[in-house]
Amino acid sequence: MSYQKKLVSNRVDGMSESIWVEFVQLALDHKPVNLGQGFPDFEAPECVRKGLADAAIGPNNVVLNQYTRGFGHPRLVNALANVYGKLTNRVIDPKKEVLVTIGAYQALYSTFMALLNEGDEVIIIEPFFDCYEPMVRMAGGTPVFIPLRLNKTDNGNVSSSDWILDMTELESKFSSRTKMIVVNTPHNPIGKIFSRSELEAIGALCKKYDSIALMDEVYEWIFYKGSEHFRMNSLEDMWDRTVTVGSAGKTFSVTGWKLGWVYGPERLLRPIQLLHQNCIYTCNTPAQEAIAIGFETEVPKIGQSDCYWQELVDLLQPKRDRMTELLKSVDMAPTIPDGGYFMVADFSKLADKIDLSGETGSKDYRFVKWLTKNRKLQGIPMSAFYSKEHKSLGENLIRFCFIKTDETLTKAADIIRDLKKSLEN
Amino acid sequence: MSYQKKLVSNRVDGMSESIWVEFVQLALDHKPVNLGQGFPDFEAPECVRKGLADAAIGPNNVVLNQYTRGFGHPRLVNALANVYGKLTNRVIDPKKEVLVTIGAYQALYSTFMALLNEGDEVIIIEPFFDCYEPMVRMAGGTPVFIPLRLNKTDNGNVSSSDWILDMTELESKFSSRTKMIVVNTPHNPIGKIFSRSELEAIGALCKKYDSIALMDEVYEWIFYKGSEHFRMNSLEDMWDRTVTVGSAGKTFSVTGWKLGWVYGPERLLRPIQLLHQNCIYTCNTPAQEAIAIGFETEVPKIGQSDCYWQELVDLLQPKRDRMTELLKSVDMAPTIPDGGYFMVADFSKLADKIDLSGETGSKDYRFVKWLTKNRKLQGIPMSAFYSKEHKSLGENLIRFCFIKTDETLTKAADIIRDLKKSLEN
Repeated sequence: MSYQKKLVSNRVDGMSESIWVEFVQLALDHKPVNLGQGFPDFEAPECVRKGLADAAIGPNNVVLNQYTRGFGHPRLVNALANVYGKLTNRVIDPKKEVLVTIGAYQALYSTFMALLNEGDEVIIIEPFFDCYEPMVRMAGGTPVFIPLRLNKTDNGNVSSSDWILDMTELESKFSSRTKMIVVNTPHNPIGKIFSRSELEAIGALCKKYDSIALMDEVYEWIFYKGSEHFRMNSLEDMWDRTVTVGSAGKTFSVTGWKLGWVYGPERLLRPIQLLHQNCIYTCNTPAQEAIAIGFETEVPKIGQSDCYWQELVDLLQPKRDRMTELLKSVDMAPTIPDGGYFMVADFSKLADKIDLSGETGSKDYRFVKWLTKNRKLQGIPMSAFYSKEHKSLGENLIRFCFIKTDETLTKAADIIRDLKKSLEN
Repeated sequence: MSYQKKLVSNRVDGMSESIWVEFVQLALDHKPVNLGQGFPDFEAPECVRKGLADAAIGPNNVVLNQYTRGFGHPRLVNALANVYGKLTNRVIDPKKEVLVTIGAYQALYSTFMALLNEGDEVIIIEPFFDCYEPMVRMAGGTPVFIPLRLNKTDNGNVSSSDWILDMTELESKFSSRTKMIVVNTPHNPIGKIFSRSELEAIGALCKKYDSIALMDEVYEWIFYKGSEHFRMNSLEDMWDRTVTVGSAGKTFSVTGWKLGWVYGPERLLRPIQLLHQNCIYTCNTPAQEAIAIGFETEVPKIGQSDCYWQELVDLLQPKRDRMTELLKSVDMAPTIPDGGYFMVADFSKLADKIDLSGETGSKDYRFVKWLTKNRKLQGIPMSAFYSKEHKSLGENLIRFCFIKTDETLTKAADIIRDLKKSLEN
């Protein structure tokens, strides 16, 4: 192959800005009521915020403002091994089976980069958190997409569990090249929680085709009454082929701390640790100390009503229900999520009456940009969460985030009702 | 090429733990007086520590604990554009010419990953911060090494400026494949500050061979009386082909915050931003707010004795001089650094009398491990900072970090003097 020097690497050449860069800038420019990105607009729990302040200025600040252990601050990896040990009913080695990362985001990145080679295929379930695809491609893998399919025959409310992963279709995507399947549960943006039997069926395919399950469980603590979160790595014979990603930002409502982790068997964690070592080396010490304190505070309260994760769900459930009623009342058919803090809605009836010709992109992009600029309400266009070939599946859908104060949700409701009213005239 | 599924990616296969993983664990296990890693064992400046605590629990905590702009928190990129605009005497665009990263470490990683293709060569000056080599290789580049050569003919003190980059030898390393040269100034571990004429000579080669200068300037504020820090990007015609990396950890003595940045022309920054977007997406918000406050506080005081960076140099210079005298008094010939906070010393006369057969690795690794375990003093073995073929150049050298309290330095001095005495008996 003849050599020719180029200005940029092929791995970024032709790459475009992610939806987050574009829509965060849009929010900075237009200051809408923001139901776009997934973060709360109220205070995070005091134990972690105070933990961070203490690390910065407290009696141990000399140590806690400096480098800590590369694969994770000792106090935090011990806390993580403890909580996931309880949840998976096994002994987890904090040094060898846990890695602290720059959010779940870099946990995913490092997992793809550490485990994929050219030619490896990665099954991605649509809609998907948008970073999966460019990360897989950058690591040399080939994404293979399969959409969740809405299977609703009556006229009742649509639930996230009506979005079905067809297991026959799924097996048709597996082959000897299938290195990995990414499963996000509770699912962003649909809110679907994969049932035990769904996970067992996926796990059986992983065993049959010698594939790894990469579990994105960043919303693991947020599931509503009647739902339960299952862990792939707790199913029989699955620990050894499962890597699970979690997020401090989602667990303790501090998305700006950009702290996450990945845990699993040493044979998979070791290469991820080595990749991390040459990319990041070590994560923010004070934030790690504070999140360790968060776990130490909340884990003993699991099962009690004053446990933060219970309080958070108790706070979110009425917001979810309120959002459902609002969207139904304006003909924006919502999917009611079993978990997470997003709600997907079909805006097509509403948007048909709006002139979106001033905006560019697919219908959902045009609607969302129009809504941000003209009505000062931001959501996220759902086609961002589909592969190129399946973008049409998302073009009538918008994602709203409802981990917001009641005041914010009221403002959003007023905007949506006003819009609906103005279109009726 | 026939496909075969492997457990791990070729990019990490065969990779070993970095020196930091090994020596940080050694420090955790043996609790030595730690002159190993480069971080202070005294309080960081109050303006940034208080800034972090305020972000966590202050009146604006609802915003400051959540996601901020992906390419950098607005307040911080504005502060960076302001300070580097002053220092380089040009207008810097905070959105297009600056990127905030997870320390200088991830700035380097993202720069290599965003700009290198297979076959590109990267010139690395030895000794070098150890991550350069695996990062370049992981990005598909080929490192080409050239050592600084100690050129000292009289018997006086060795200064870091006695370590010479031979420009004829350097040109012999350049070719049409030279994509980039990495220049670290002030230099870790030697402490050398590249003179204006040295930078001009390197810059001329970059222009002649159409190469990029990647400037690692994390110690840019730490240079001692009689020295001055020059910036490659301020030389004629060099802005457009220079990318410069900086570190909040080194600038404000908070290495544990893992915050850094890279700045330069849009044509080079843009691909680095895109790489960053798919690897990290965004950095810790409260730390970015606090570092912005740090710059806003200190930049107006530049040139005054109460500016933090002046205070830090005033604090470090006597420590450097004390360390010099100590090492000379025990026959550990030191190189006196013009900048940075490391001192390299030749331990060969001392170690000849010690039985190091219980340890593994090259002579410097064995000496450093022995010293940590048996005398409870940690330094870093210098061969870690040389390529495989040149490791022998470092095998008699140890690096000590002197950004430590006088109490710590006294303990270290006592250990070294005791060792010397015990070997004389």
